[in-house]
Amino acid sequence: MPERIAVIGSGWEATLSQKLDDKKFEVIVISPEAKTPYTPLLAAAATGMFNLSLAEEPIRHKSKNIRFMQAKVEDIDFQKKSIHCTPAFKELEKRPFDLEYDRVIITPGTTNQTFGTKGVEEHALFLRTVKDAYAVRSRIEDIVEQASLPHITDDERRDMLRVIVVGGGPIGVEVSAELSDLVRGDLAQLYPGFKDKFTIEVHDVADQILPMFEKSLAGYAQKSFVRKDVKIHTSSHITEVQPGKLFTKERGEIGFGMLIWATGNKQVSLVDTLKVSKSEKLPRILTNDRLQVLDTNGEPMKGVYALGDAADVKGGELPTTAEVACQKAEYLSNAINTGLDKPFEYSSKAMIAYTGSADGVAAGQKEWSGASAWMAWRAKNLDWSRSWRNRILIGVNWGLNHVFGKETFRN
Amino acid sequence: MPERIAVIGSGWEATLSQKLDDKKFEVIVISPEAKTPYTPLLAAAATGMFNLSLAEEPIRHKSKNIRFMQAKVEDIDFQKKSIHCTPAFKELEKRPFDLEYDRVIITPGTTNQTFGTKGVEEHALFLRTVKDAYAVRSRIEDIVEQASLPHITDDERRDMLRVIVVGGGPIGVEVSAELSDLVRGDLAQLYPGFKDKFTIEVHDVADQILPMFEKSLAGYAQKSFVRKDVKIHTSSHITEVQPGKLFTKERGEIGFGMLIWATGNKQVSLVDTLKVSKSEKLPRILTNDRLQVLDTNGEPMKGVYALGDAADVKGGELPTTAEVACQKAEYLSNAINTGLDKPFEYSSKAMIAYTGSADGVAAGQKEWSGASAWMAWRAKNLDWSRSWRNRILIGVNWGLNHVFGKETFRN
Repeated sequence: MPERIAVIGSGWEATLSQKLDDKKFEVIVISPEAKTPYTPLLAAAATGMFNLSLAEEPIRHKSKNIRFMQAKVEDIDFQKKSIHCTPAFKELEKRPFDLEYDRVIITPGTTNQTFGTKGVEEHALFLRTVKDAYAVRSRIEDIVEQASLPHITDDERRDMLRVIVVGGGPIGVEVSAELSDLVRGDLAQLYPGFKDKFTIEVHDVADQILPMFEKSLAGYAQKSFVRKDVKIHTSSHITEVQPGKLFTKERGEIGFGMLIWATGNKQVSLVDTLKVSKSEKLPRILTNDRLQVLDTNGEPMKGVYALGDAADVKGGELPTTAEVACQKAEYLSNAINTGLDKPFEYSSKAMIAYTGSADGVAAGQKEWSGASAWMAWRAKNLDWSRSWRNRILIGVNWGLNHVFGKETFRN
Repeated sequence: MPERIAVIGSGWEATLSQKLDDKKFEVIVISPEAKTPYTPLLAAAATGMFNLSLAEEPIRHKSKNIRFMQAKVEDIDFQKKSIHCTPAFKELEKRPFDLEYDRVIITPGTTNQTFGTKGVEEHALFLRTVKDAYAVRSRIEDIVEQASLPHITDDERRDMLRVIVVGGGPIGVEVSAELSDLVRGDLAQLYPGFKDKFTIEVHDVADQILPMFEKSLAGYAQKSFVRKDVKIHTSSHITEVQPGKLFTKERGEIGFGMLIWATGNKQVSLVDTLKVSKSEKLPRILTNDRLQVLDTNGEPMKGVYALGDAADVKGGELPTTAEVACQKAEYLSNAINTGLDKPFEYSSKAMIAYTGSADGVAAGQKEWSGASAWMAWRAKNLDWSRSWRNRILIGVNWGLNHVFGKETFRN
């Protein structure tokens, strides 16, 4: 019997499961989601740049011998080497099951951080999965049609056409940039009367957007945004969200047609449940530099690994980025496949954000802004996509968008 | 002021609004749906053949000066020439509005016919819109994953992997054929253990499937289906549907993982509301041979037209097919644009159904079966699609499907 490796989760780090040697090990992935979303493509997909299913990749592959179970992991019994799961289907939620393992890799990712703000879960949209992107796209279609109805007043119309993005990190900035491109491109042609009625606002509690970039680059992004009529509200404190309106400490009530909440990460319930060493602030599972989970005494647990946004290396803390997750996945699959015993080392790579109309900022090994950063962003996005089928279709879509307009708002 | 023509509906016959002279008339389309679905593409799109948004076309076009209002028409006051509408958005459903017209074209289509069978609305899927196709696709993904869970018994697995299609018309037959292709193709590779556990059943209350085709062609379709392990149950009477099971008079309880209800058309509430001449059985608005609506005395109403599945010509009854709707749309737009006064005449064209694995039947001017009918079906489907953008992408997708597998179940 080959050794059984259970991988919990299907985010960026799920590429790990694809890289484990399926002839040497029995690989089982357990996750509530059957597909891995390509987070950097979600903003573009949500605004109609291309087919939504190009922004995700199924875990099952014809060419890989991987078992998959669509379920939520509730707990792990490290003594019995057993994982307690609930099927991710309403019809089967009362039919839990247990799965035994020889080794387990814990990568459940994170969930939406709402800071307990009242009304966010009910009235805001998020941008973490392709389902979220689909909801954003539908909502854009709805607000422009609602605002087109003949008996809507001009004040109501302005509120309906106000999009508020909470969170000035890469996702918030990119979705605002894509929306700005859409508003001034295809939407301006299809709904000519809306030109001066559309507003996009980015709100962040911090005093600058893109805090992970150098001050100068973040400043460039902010300036290029203002030029494009995306209003930036830094040091803005959201106190409550109601249907169609939000409240801030600084400006009181603001009406909106769509609210996208992109403020950051919160630990999933499994991280709370597990009795292991955890970091403070955003609680993350602590590992040693071999990505082995540390027990409550700080001792590494044999055959138990953790990576992705839900984990961090003790004494070598790294941010919750896709790049870190991918490098750890590469390291761990290699270490497990070959038995190599060498610590994980992170090599810093460029971090890129799109700020609209073929413009962008890039930080890391080199620092760019402007069109060259945009080119890098496009290339990077194609690079994220794992399958050639998707790369070809994304390329064809970009070409057709230039000729015919975006998928949703075309002709 | 140009004459205002209000078009109610956005089905096949909505192509009419695109053909009206937008320099001569003010054209306003009112419909709860902002896009026209290409019904013949829905079955293929639902089974992952290509991107779902390729199976629909937005009503708004950059090149056409058409106003659109996303609303449901509740009633028409023919005296005041006024249309009473409710916005098609939950937030605005208590904000009705009225719209005046000079001429009105009534094409609201039909809705799902459930014959009042208990549980159908709640537990069955339909295949009329792209949203429906999306639901079918998601459901296929769910049932194969549910059946993959380790603690599911073999009996449960067989029920989960049973797809029941109620209705043996073109849509029911085509979706069964596409499902059969999917099961024996991509799904067989991704879920090898399911090969002998998958079943597809077509139920129809009539004694044959495809009743609109010649007996010999319907017989061919039935035979080619049986060869492909799609079980046909003619003269089957569904009495009730419950979650995961349906009941028939002939066979009692049958478990299913997915139920697609494709039995036919029922009039929409607007047809019930309007006080005009109507046909019996499926009530349809009666018109003269100029497609002018007949009032309750049988007299043509000036400037009031009806076509599509909701209307029929008195004394020249035609079936509710896309072909009839399109020919009437062509005729009426031409008659209105040019003022031509000539009766509508239907010219019979080929009717084609896909029965799976590059096989099919075609009836009409010529009668084919087998691969040549399949070729005609493919060509016809490309032909339905109005925009070149979509035709190119559908073509590229078909090509890529051959190389990489279908969109959903690829790799």
